[in-house]
Amino acid sequence: MSPQLAILGGRPTFAQPMPGRAGFFPARERFVAAFAGIFERQYYTNQGPLAAALERRLAERLEVRHAICVTNGTVGLMMAAEALGLKGRIVLPAAAPAAPAVALGWAGLEPVFCDIDAARLQMTADTVAEALDRADGDAIAAALGVNLWGGAGDPPGLAALAEARGLAFLSDSAHGFGCAVAGTPLGGFGRAEVFSFGPGKIVTATEGGCVTTNDDELAARLRNIRSSYGAGRPVSVVRTANGRMSEAQAAVALLSLDDFEANRRHNLALRCAYEEGLRGIPGIGLVEPAGVSTSNHHYVIARLDAAAFGMGAAALAEVLAAENIGARLLIAAGLHRSFPWGAADRPAARLPGTDAAAASSLCLPTGAAVSIEAVARICEAIAHAQRTAPAIRARRE
Amino acid sequence: MSPQLAILGGRPTFAQPMPGRAGFFPARERFVAAFAGIFERQYYTNQGPLAAALERRLAERLEVRHAICVTNGTVGLMMAAEALGLKGRIVLPAAAPAAPAVALGWAGLEPVFCDIDAARLQMTADTVAEALDRADGDAIAAALGVNLWGGAGDPPGLAALAEARGLAFLSDSAHGFGCAVAGTPLGGFGRAEVFSFGPGKIVTATEGGCVTTNDDELAARLRNIRSSYGAGRPVSVVRTANGRMSEAQAAVALLSLDDFEANRRHNLALRCAYEEGLRGIPGIGLVEPAGVSTSNHHYVIARLDAAAFGMGAAALAEVLAAENIGARLLIAAGLHRSFPWGAADRPAARLPGTDAAAASSLCLPTGAAVSIEAVARICEAIAHAQRTAPAIRARRE
Repeated sequence: MSPQLAILGGRPTFAQPMPGRAGFFPARERFVAAFAGIFERQYYTNQGPLAAALERRLAERLEVRHAICVTNGTVGLMMAAEALGLKGRIVLPAAAPAAPAVALGWAGLEPVFCDIDAARLQMTADTVAEALDRADGDAIAAALGVNLWGGAGDPPGLAALAEARGLAFLSDSAHGFGCAVAGTPLGGFGRAEVFSFGPGKIVTATEGGCVTTNDDELAARLRNIRSSYGAGRPVSVVRTANGRMSEAQAAVALLSLDDFEANRRHNLALRCAYEEGLRGIPGIGLVEPAGVSTSNHHYVIARLDAAAFGMGAAALAEVLAAENIGARLLIAAGLHRSFPWGAADRPAARLPGTDAAAASSLCLPTGAAVSIEAVARICEAIAHAQRTAPAIRARRE
Repeated sequence: MSPQLAILGGRPTFAQPMPGRAGFFPARERFVAAFAGIFERQYYTNQGPLAAALERRLAERLEVRHAICVTNGTVGLMMAAEALGLKGRIVLPAAAPAAPAVALGWAGLEPVFCDIDAARLQMTADTVAEALDRADGDAIAAALGVNLWGGAGDPPGLAALAEARGLAFLSDSAHGFGCAVAGTPLGGFGRAEVFSFGPGKIVTATEGGCVTTNDDELAARLRNIRSSYGAGRPVSVVRTANGRMSEAQAAVALLSLDDFEANRRHNLALRCAYEEGLRGIPGIGLVEPAGVSTSNHHYVIARLDAAAFGMGAAALAEVLAAENIGARLLIAAGLHRSFPWGAADRPAARLPGTDAAAASSLCLPTGAAVSIEAVARICEAIAHAQRTAPAIRARRE
C-alpha cells in the first residue's frame, strides 16, 4: 500500500478506476453460440422464441404465473401503472433511485414520498402510513413498494396496509432479483412487480426488464399494452407502448440467469471479505439486507458514524474516488430534495430516516469487476482514511 | 400458377406465408465480427463507442447537427415532446399508424386528427389548417408531420403554417429514413424529427430509433432526458426516460446503414417489377411516393378502383392472404375511427381523404423476404383475382 493516500498526494490504490458495480456479463463464446441460433431462425424481435423461453424461465424462477419481458424497467413500470389504471398520486420512498418516480410520471402519476426506516434502510408499513396521513389521503391511488439494495420493504405488511386503505399495491424490484421474503421470492407480491435487467443488475439483458403478476387479467392487459406477438389473448387496452424485448436481449438474459447463483455467491464472498476487512475499523460497519430471507448481495452498504470514523460518507467517497475506488453515496440527496420534486419554492417533506441514510451510507464496489483481493485493498484504504482523518479534514478546511 | 385461387379451393401461390415487410438484417458473419468488438471492450450499453459512432454517421447521412439514438421510436417521440415542453393538443394525421399518437399520449398530449390528401396519401398544410380550424385552435401546441410510406407531408409547407399559427412543428419520420424533399434529407425539418429503426424498417437496429435536430439547446435537453453518458453538456430537464440504445442495437444499425443503398435499390427493383406486373390489370395501379425527390421505396402501395377491379382493397387482401401473400390494408380504419380515440359515443371527424385511402389502398409485400420472381407471381395472383372477381364476390355473398 502506498505510504500516503492519493487525496494527500500519494499514488492511488488502483491504477485504473474501478466501477461501483459492473454487471456480470456472460462469456463471449456462449453468447456467440446463442446468437447463432437467432440468425438461423431469422427471428430478431417481437416475442421470439428466446423471449418466450425467458418468460417461462422467469415465471418458474420467481414462482409467479406471468413474467412479461419488456424493453427496460422504466417502460415496464409505465405499463404496469397503465394496466392497473392508476391515476392521481402514488406513495414511494424518497430514498429510491429517480427511475421509478420518473416512470410513474410518464404514466401521469405524481409521487408522494415516504421515509425509510433508518436502521433497516427500507420503507415500512409505518413510513407509508405516515406519508398517507401527511397527504391526507388526497387522491392517492397506490403504494409502490421499492425493494432497495438487495433487501425488501416488507411486501406483506405493505400489501395489508394498502388493502386497509383501499390502495393498489405494486412493487419496483429492480434491485431485488433473486431475493426472497420468508422463503417466497420477490415477484409475486401485490398486484405486480417490476424487475430491471439493466447493465448494472445481477441479471442483465444489457437493457431490459420484466413485469410479474399472478393476475391473469392484468397479464393479458400488460401483454397487449406491450404491443407484440405473444399477447396470448387480445384484450382491449386504452394505450399501448413499445415494450418489446428483442431476441438479443433475451439471449443475454437467459445466459445471465444461468449464471445467477454463481454470481450471487461471488457477491456473498465479496461481502464476507468486506466484513472481515472492515472489522476493527472504528465507526464503520456493513448494513445487513433487511426484510429478506435470501439476498442477491449485489449491494454492499457501509454505514459510517462520522464522529467515530472521523469523517462522513461524502468525505470518505471522495477519498476513495482518488484511490480509483468507485464507492458511491447510497442516496445522493433523497428525491424529496431533488429536482423536479423538491422544488426550491416548496419545503421538502420531513423524512429523517432518508436524510440520516443519505449522510451516513456508502455503497461499496461489488459485482463482476471486483475480486476478493481487491476488497482487501479497498478495506485497507478505508482503514488508512480513518487513521488519517485529521489530516484529510485539515486539507478540506 | 394454380388453376384456381386458394380462396376458391386451389393451392396457394406460395407454400409458406410471406410477410408483408421483412426488414433487411445484416449478414450473420458481419454481425458476429461487430459483436466481437463489443465483448473485447466489455462496454455493452450506455452510449458506448458504437452508439456514438452511429450518432455521427446518422448526423452526417441526414445532414443534421444532432442525431440522438434511442431505445425505440416511441420513446424518441416521448422524449421530443418532453424536450419541447409540449402540453395540450397536437395535430397529426388519422392515416398514420397508432404508434405516434400512443407515444404522444404518454407525453400527456391529446391528438387532433387531420386528413390526408387522397391522391398524394400525405398530410398537407391545407389538411392541417382544416384540423386547426375545426378544433378552433383550442389549446393546440404543435403539429406533428408524419412522413408516411416513403413519401413526405410537405415539411416546408407545414413548418410555415405552424410558424404562422404559433405552433411547434416536429416530425415523425419512422417511414422516411433516406427520403429527401427537394434534395434535402428528412431529418432536418422543423424543431426535431424522430426515426424508427424497428424490425420492419429499411434501417434497423432490431429495435431502436433516433431523434434529429439542428437545435443545440434542444439536443442537450434530449441527451439529458435520455439518461445516459454522452449527455455532452448537463442541462436541467424536468423528467428523464430510459432511452438508451445498447451497443448491440448500435452494431446492427451501423451494418444496416452500410447496406442502406443496396436495400433501397432492391426495393426499387421490386417496385419496378410490380409496375410491370400490374400493367394492364383493370382498376389497380401503384401510388407514387408523394412530396419527395428521393424515396426509400420501402413501401409499395397499390390503389384499387373497386368498380373497375371488381372488388375493394379488403376483399383483395383476403384473396392474397389465402395465397400466403402478406398484402395489408394501408390504413386499418384511421385513428379517428379507432379505439380509444374514436370512442363509440362521439362522432369521428370527417376525414374523407383518409376514409377513401382506407377503402382503396393496399400495401404490397416488399423488403428482404421478397424477390423479383416472387413479385411476378404476386402480380399474377392479383390478375387472377381480377379475372375471377365475380366468382369471389358470389362466394362472399
